[in-house]
Amino acid sequence: MGAIDELVTELARLPTIGRKSAMRLTYHLLKQPTEQSRRLAAALTTLVETVRPCARCFNLTESELCAICSDPRRDAAIICVVEEASDIPAIERAAEFRGTYHVLGGRLAPIDGVGPEELTVGALVARVAAGGVGEVIVATNPKLEGEATALYLQEQLAGHPVRVTRLARGLPMGGDLEYADGGTIAQALSARRVMG
Amino acid sequence: MGAIDELVTELARLPTIGRKSAMRLTYHLLKQPTEQSRRLAAALTTLVETVRPCARCFNLTESELCAICSDPRRDAAIICVVEEASDIPAIERAAEFRGTYHVLGGRLAPIDGVGPEELTVGALVARVAAGGVGEVIVATNPKLEGEATALYLQEQLAGHPVRVTRLARGLPMGGDLEYADGGTIAQALSARRVMG
Repeated sequence: MGAIDELVTELARLPTIGRKSAMRLTYHLLKQPTEQSRRLAAALTTLVETVRPCARCFNLTESELCAICSDPRRDAAIICVVEEASDIPAIERAAEFRGTYHVLGGRLAPIDGVGPEELTVGALVARVAAGGVGEVIVATNPKLEGEATALYLQEQLAGHPVRVTRLARGLPMGGDLEYADGGTIAQALSARRVMG
Repeated sequence: MGAIDELVTELARLPTIGRKSAMRLTYHLLKQPTEQSRRLAAALTTLVETVRPCARCFNLTESELCAICSDPRRDAAIICVVEEASDIPAIERAAEFRGTYHVLGGRLAPIDGVGPEELTVGALVARVAAGGVGEVIVATNPKLEGEATALYLQEQLAGHPVRVTRLARGLPMGGDLEYADGGTIAQALSARRVMG
């Protein structure tokens, strides 16, 4: 039963999907019209072939610049710094923010070997140094490592004429930004405060 | 963000995966080497291209006959009838059963429009009528519809010189055979009783 085992193995590699769930999903797909599995396979292939980081903010995009960076209605003078591209939809859902983003690609975690070089900190500083940026909102996750990353960014940007703020403590500590509801994020955005 | 939305939509079609989980999985795949998504896509394509029902028992296979039907060490005189092909690995794990299988493709459910014609009942009766079968073990799920299906099969096979048994009540009522542990299934198999 090579083909079934193979798909079960591949599905079980995904987070939160164990071997039993993977088997359940595989048998489910086998009961559907084959078109459904083909569409899923095609979507996976298209994803890895076309999605890449935005040249400016490292958000995910299918073009040179992401949809937000290339939107003239977005305010390029405000940069909201997030850990992951997956945090952006959560902030967008709050519909409160009209600035742009910068995706760090993670958070500082010395124990796991993640230093500033592993993140896009240099590119962020370069964007600010190029001028025209009035405010950097640090929206790292309200966890220990996210806080450390926020403080590090504040230091790095200290010499530049830019206001560095962070999201207000509307977010519950220990939570995940990605899962926060729009209302909480909207509150945290509007009550953001100057760092340091 | 066409490609991302498309994959999220396809993943969210799967059972137990909501839109948030689908987004989480998509972003996870984007952080992995593209090889992982390609392998998953390839496994899906291979699955729908190569897997089909066994010509004898309707188990899933990549050949004319499934691995069990084509294994000379399996006793073709005993047929264990299950609702779905996904029930077979659960029974195989119990390592107690050396006979063959017959996959009904569901259970009788008049309300959902599933009658005997939608199942492989005719093929089962034909296998028995062809001779050489000493026992049919009905292993439908211990639920109302599974019970009704078992009784219907018993009636259909009544005119044939075959012993019709069913799994002992070791299985908890309302449960799913697919999720039962090997020990429970082994007990239920060894204590099976003649129907009627």
